[in-house]
Amino acid sequence: MQNFIEAIEAQIGGSTVLKGHQVSDKYASDESSDRLQKPEAVLRPASAEALSKMLQAAVRHRQPLVVQGGLTGLCGGAAPQENEVSVSLERLNKIENLDARSMTMTVQAGVTLEGVQNAAAEAGLLFPLDLGARGSCTIGGNIATNAGGNQVIRYGSMRNLVLGLEAVLPDGTIMCAMNTLLKNNAGFDLKHFFIGSEGTLGIVTRAVLRLFPWPGSRITVLCGMDCFEHCIVLLNQVRKSFPDTLNSFEVMWAAYYQASIRHVDNLRNPFATTHKYYALVELCGDDQQHDRQRTENFLENCFNAGIIENAVLAGSEQQSADFWRIRDGIGRLIKIYNFPANFDVGIALDKMEGFVEKVMQRLAADFANIVVFPFGHIGDGNLHLSVSTGNQADNHRIYHTVYQMCADYDASISAEHGIGMMKNPIYRFPELRKKYS
Amino acid sequence: MQNFIEAIEAQIGGSTVLKGHQVSDKYASDESSDRLQKPEAVLRPASAEALSKMLQAAVRHRQPLVVQGGLTGLCGGAAPQENEVSVSLERLNKIENLDARSMTMTVQAGVTLEGVQNAAAEAGLLFPLDLGARGSCTIGGNIATNAGGNQVIRYGSMRNLVLGLEAVLPDGTIMCAMNTLLKNNAGFDLKHFFIGSEGTLGIVTRAVLRLFPWPGSRITVLCGMDCFEHCIVLLNQVRKSFPDTLNSFEVMWAAYYQASIRHVDNLRNPFATTHKYYALVELCGDDQQHDRQRTENFLENCFNAGIIENAVLAGSEQQSADFWRIRDGIGRLIKIYNFPANFDVGIALDKMEGFVEKVMQRLAADFANIVVFPFGHIGDGNLHLSVSTGNQADNHRIYHTVYQMCADYDASISAEHGIGMMKNPIYRFPELRKKYS
Repeated sequence: MQNFIEAIEAQIGGSTVLKGHQVSDKYASDESSDRLQKPEAVLRPASAEALSKMLQAAVRHRQPLVVQGGLTGLCGGAAPQENEVSVSLERLNKIENLDARSMTMTVQAGVTLEGVQNAAAEAGLLFPLDLGARGSCTIGGNIATNAGGNQVIRYGSMRNLVLGLEAVLPDGTIMCAMNTLLKNNAGFDLKHFFIGSEGTLGIVTRAVLRLFPWPGSRITVLCGMDCFEHCIVLLNQVRKSFPDTLNSFEVMWAAYYQASIRHVDNLRNPFATTHKYYALVELCGDDQQHDRQRTENFLENCFNAGIIENAVLAGSEQQSADFWRIRDGIGRLIKIYNFPANFDVGIALDKMEGFVEKVMQRLAADFANIVVFPFGHIGDGNLHLSVSTGNQADNHRIYHTVYQMCADYDASISAEHGIGMMKNPIYRFPELRKKYS
Repeated sequence: MQNFIEAIEAQIGGSTVLKGHQVSDKYASDESSDRLQKPEAVLRPASAEALSKMLQAAVRHRQPLVVQGGLTGLCGGAAPQENEVSVSLERLNKIENLDARSMTMTVQAGVTLEGVQNAAAEAGLLFPLDLGARGSCTIGGNIATNAGGNQVIRYGSMRNLVLGLEAVLPDGTIMCAMNTLLKNNAGFDLKHFFIGSEGTLGIVTRAVLRLFPWPGSRITVLCGMDCFEHCIVLLNQVRKSFPDTLNSFEVMWAAYYQASIRHVDNLRNPFATTHKYYALVELCGDDQQHDRQRTENFLENCFNAGIIENAVLAGSEQQSADFWRIRDGIGRLIKIYNFPANFDVGIALDKMEGFVEKVMQRLAADFANIVVFPFGHIGDGNLHLSVSTGNQADNHRIYHTVYQMCADYDASISAEHGIGMMKNPIYRFPELRKKYS
């Protein structure tokens, strides 16, 4: 490893390398656990060309690398393993171009999602990818994991928002596919090899993103329901009545909702009543007054039909943001509950309720004092579960139980978080690691 | 070739093979030219397993194949070349499943686009891919070319509408990636290798398609404008005012518009005035009356601001369909003008007008009596040109001129039609063909 680092310093310059006390704890893990494993060094390329040389040197020296973006991943994909040197894209943090007329933005991989959202908003446009980690996660990581989040039901996952990209392959080749055209089918569309492949095929350095018109209205509603079937009925009714304006359809089970209200600073429960399920629905249209009136009528009908028990329509931007802070509370809960086992399940809507109940049953049989927080992007068939016994040592068994059940329910073990190291069987079962290394 | 055909007949059964007089002219070309080249035989697999055996036999016998779907392509991708045997997917024509609750449909590759649209509509749902050839083109071909069409601005291209697929690889491997989940990022998303790769990597046999809520309103407007800049301004205004309901933004240059009105049966011009550009705009929302009122106000503002010269808002489904028949007139014009040179250009909006003018200038300098019909999905930066001198022998030079200009304007030579044989340099330049065969 020392030879490798010296080679990089000699070839690219010492300032791109952090080592020793310069390597802070921030490089020692992502959000998946509190286990710190500082990398021996952090390489911080400021260009695709510098990264290309680093990768060539790594191959020559047989030096394993880990790629780091905003370090907000929940699967250990960016968490350094023993003997790894980290490559951080934090210096590739420029917005290179925003073309408001063609509604595209060209950015380097290390720009944060929020940076992109804000730059688009300043130009009166929307970059619709949105997730709780927006302030820290980076575009490179969003591409590597094909990130999803809160508005997939309307705008699709990251894959749908990337027009072009540049990536550096393991042999140092810089693959430039910086397409800016909305439609281009001239030959293989190579960008799709890299989107969602978590850096296994190459490291993304730049991207051309697609922007959208800024919506003219935003209606945020929180509904309380007493059975899961009503959540599905509500979803179908919303889709039918608002086919073009439904941006988000999130559901929180009571356990999650109450824990979030309790632990996130300055939140209060907008309901005096309690419910088994809470749906957070956001509609973005073009006429605030008209859309609000239609939503009120819609909610009244749902109430009269017995689909919803209660509903609050946010009366201000602040109240809308507060509703979202309940939904985003998972970031806080992960810390409070000492890094629970986190799941990111893609599953058919009709199987979701049964799956959650069975998970709870099985885990309760195995562990006393277990806490299960189900929530997620139910409109996309994407269920998240955070499961904790208070003792991280139990997580391995929890993973085993829930992943086994995913197989039974034809569910995906990764809807939007990726595989990382934590869902990689070679990593989880050291005997395999030896075989394939 | 004879050995190959006999091997197929022996192994799979005679009824899957057409030969001799059973091979009708329909298998002898696609829509790209009137040159008929009947294949020696047509293989019609009724399952992926049968297709797998055919491909294995083809490799053994070194028999070149051409894959045929609805035969509506404009690039010769399905047109048989000398010594090719055709594989038609016409017997793989079942809709296997429609799940209205999860809004997915599982179909075989040979189902027509219209068949899928109609089945979705019967379930109260929308399959949003739409193009002029809807009645004949098939889902397999739509996937192979990553088809675009009239509603890309809202729903994206075919790639965005496919959740899973099954394909048979050249070695006979059946790759089953029939994902039905809206979000699934567990590992490489192999379907993207096949979408848009025009059968070069494998033959698609089945797919899981994504359905959408049926829109509650449909407003169709035809606008007349006197300069192209106003088309772009109108597009941006529509996007701003109707960010969520804009389904289509098509522009026809006067030459195209008038030829379509003249040659398509039973069409009449809704305008008494003449204009340089005609925009066909479709908005699909959820409240017919409200959306209509808003559109009327919007058009009045555009008229007062001098952006549009004239506009007609369709007063009935029939009138809306008639507006679309003007836009879809290209199918008729291709026959009338004796197979013109067709172009499918992806280009930045700001360059489009200059590109068209330069093309017209250059071609007019080279050819007397040349007719150029520009039109297309301008909201997607997708320009179509049909160019004819009345003599097909001129097409080769016309292609050469226009493709050279695409390079000068950073334009794509295929936005949505694919490469096929007609944009394949190895095919176009026989000396290369020898080298690579």
